[in-house]
Amino acid sequence: MPKPRNVVVAQSGGPTPVINSSLRGVVETCRQMPDTFGTVYAGLHGIEGVLKEELIDMSAQAAEEIALLSTTPAAGAIGTCRYKLKAHQQEDFERVIEVFKAHDVGYFFYNGGNDSMDTAHKIAQLAHEQGLDLVATGVPKTIDNDVGDSAFKLIDHTPGYGSVARYWALNVQNANEENCGSSPADPVLVMQAMGRKIGYIPAAARLADPDREMPLLIFMKESNLGLEVLADQVNDMLKSRGRALVVVSEGFDVGDIGARKDSFGHTMFGASGFTAGQAVVNYLNEVGLAARGSARGNVSGTDQRHNMIYASTVDIEEAYKVGQKAALIAAEEGSGFMSTILRQPGSIYNVYYDKVPLELVANSERTFPAAWISANGSDVTDDFVRYARPLIGDDWPSIPLVDGRQRFARLQPIMAEQKLPAYELQAVRTAG
Amino acid sequence: MPKPRNVVVAQSGGPTPVINSSLRGVVETCRQMPDTFGTVYAGLHGIEGVLKEELIDMSAQAAEEIALLSTTPAAGAIGTCRYKLKAHQQEDFERVIEVFKAHDVGYFFYNGGNDSMDTAHKIAQLAHEQGLDLVATGVPKTIDNDVGDSAFKLIDHTPGYGSVARYWALNVQNANEENCGSSPADPVLVMQAMGRKIGYIPAAARLADPDREMPLLIFMKESNLGLEVLADQVNDMLKSRGRALVVVSEGFDVGDIGARKDSFGHTMFGASGFTAGQAVVNYLNEVGLAARGSARGNVSGTDQRHNMIYASTVDIEEAYKVGQKAALIAAEEGSGFMSTILRQPGSIYNVYYDKVPLELVANSERTFPAAWISANGSDVTDDFVRYARPLIGDDWPSIPLVDGRQRFARLQPIMAEQKLPAYELQAVRTAG
Repeated sequence: MPKPRNVVVAQSGGPTPVINSSLRGVVETCRQMPDTFGTVYAGLHGIEGVLKEELIDMSAQAAEEIALLSTTPAAGAIGTCRYKLKAHQQEDFERVIEVFKAHDVGYFFYNGGNDSMDTAHKIAQLAHEQGLDLVATGVPKTIDNDVGDSAFKLIDHTPGYGSVARYWALNVQNANEENCGSSPADPVLVMQAMGRKIGYIPAAARLADPDREMPLLIFMKESNLGLEVLADQVNDMLKSRGRALVVVSEGFDVGDIGARKDSFGHTMFGASGFTAGQAVVNYLNEVGLAARGSARGNVSGTDQRHNMIYASTVDIEEAYKVGQKAALIAAEEGSGFMSTILRQPGSIYNVYYDKVPLELVANSERTFPAAWISANGSDVTDDFVRYARPLIGDDWPSIPLVDGRQRFARLQPIMAEQKLPAYELQAVRTAG
Repeated sequence: MPKPRNVVVAQSGGPTPVINSSLRGVVETCRQMPDTFGTVYAGLHGIEGVLKEELIDMSAQAAEEIALLSTTPAAGAIGTCRYKLKAHQQEDFERVIEVFKAHDVGYFFYNGGNDSMDTAHKIAQLAHEQGLDLVATGVPKTIDNDVGDSAFKLIDHTPGYGSVARYWALNVQNANEENCGSSPADPVLVMQAMGRKIGYIPAAARLADPDREMPLLIFMKESNLGLEVLADQVNDMLKSRGRALVVVSEGFDVGDIGARKDSFGHTMFGASGFTAGQAVVNYLNEVGLAARGSARGNVSGTDQRHNMIYASTVDIEEAYKVGQKAALIAAEEGSGFMSTILRQPGSIYNVYYDKVPLELVANSERTFPAAWISANGSDVTDDFVRYARPLIGDDWPSIPLVDGRQRFARLQPIMAEQKLPAYELQAVRTAG
């Protein structure tokens, strides 16, 4: 019988409220299979921690803390990173293999989006070339729901999306309570949603109001409408309803205002440029609303993706199971797969877990189905609601409170002994 | 025995998550005293509804919906308004009395801040002059905790504050999870807090971390620090901790940047001007951070005050009881008082409910105690923590979910019959 090999798990890219639930799924499942999996390490701050040989010993952590990962948002527990292994950074890839060899790592789990699946695939290839018997397995994660294909055949949806969708469903409900109560003074509330490239997040605002009772307008990047059409639609809404809730994607095309600098040549707000939400608020206030009062803007920013209380219980559970499935795939099927969630046919929501080759995911691209955008461009269809509604679940998550505060998982800084010389990171980073 | 007289209750100013809990307290208590209180009406959109004779019949609503008011945020149920009755708007005051006379209103409950207590007082005076036997009673409410006096003798704290404080305590915890996990790319997160004039809201961020483990800096308006000192302190934090969470009051003095217009002469973002949070983010990114990466900003805006899930259970209960107490005061003590919350001496948190003359509240002003601001200006002291900690409670509120969505109170549009000619509102409004 072969000796168990050690495990490295790492997270990549922007966090989600349920990213740690997948981590828990991997760790607990590996712990349950001691004949296959040895010590489970996690790369501190993702692949950066692997390169720097900063490996947290997850096997040495208390079971209670591992369990608490399911209600611990973002990536504070082990971190994630924006550091991207690029094809031309051959040294980085070789360093990863070197670290894996030094720690007898036979299993690598990488939790991320399309790019991360590409990275995992390349690491697996290089390991093979260099004589390291490594099983590399992907665990899907994004808030944008942009992993996989547009036909939902590779994966139905990505863990992380359901929770951000729920954030929007419930937050728009709360916003509507204020907007309908104080409309004469603040008739228009603009809320900027994440999703620079794809509109699943702003689309989820419709889940707040599937019966279309609110004066809600949703402007996704895919709508291809400009500020003028947006203002016209807002003014039409003001005429008919006296108020409007406007959800606008950060990727919505606001023309050259988006790149506008102020009179001092300074870039406006945010890490990069003038945001779509700001542009919309300013445009509405300048062009003039068809009502007394003015437009106001909320830019909740990263709150959307690190807000645990809005996490979907369905998402928490699925994130766990997709991590669990990844461990099972690694143990039973070998290298080169990502675990997936697929939806059973029929009107009752039911999923099963499967696998797909990493290479297939890395080379696939998902778009928001055009058929799910309404004719006027500022709403989504009932088909989208039927797709997304089950993902937000039916209950509040149970987040323990201690002394009034959320009790998140706290891992002990028990690190693997460093065996290699220090390594200098490249300066290349991706935005986000 | 005197015949019961009808009741009008109205809300004023910005909403809170628990404003409707006070409404419920007034309505249910009035219903329990049918010998004193007749039909209970609510002014739609606050005093605007009184002026326009748009009175919702609260007595005709289902008891279940009245009960749901405790977990219904903002003011969607009956609305609030920014319309301010001014001394020179004598017609407005006279119209209120006229409407009260037409509907045999003997009790008026006004839920709001200092200004509203002033209005309630003036209405009571005018009613007396005009021979209307009216009992006017105030119900305190603000998120800013600026009602009453600085010595906490008139009122310990205002309903609404505890919930917004809890929003900041828990949200900063969530933000810290992301910030500590992904610090290399996004070392600085700037979060703009409400509280244009007084710093109780940003101060509450300290409740996320009473033991001072996070790299958290809090810049209140009262700190009287400028952008340069702020940037120095952020850079010091980056040097020692590698990351920083920066909570900045919307009232923080950002100098002339605050009034800055862009190159097209447009006012930047928000209903009025360039926000403090934006100025801080831009300044940090321009001046240069003492770390790789950049600053990022979240401006959650009105989410802070209409977010029900962050409501404090202590606040929900106290808001109810302060409404209940107002009804008891009106029935037993006569006109001209506001109900208050006072803290029992001793280390165990315990409150009792009392009354204070409206006139005294109207003429009082609360400031944030200078002794509660730390020496370096970017923190609050443990005395503040001891004051504020009990207000955020220990549990999550129980908000019913139906079909995945929050089930808020929904009142039927059963209105009092209009008996007077229509009335044209003045155009005067307050900002905010």
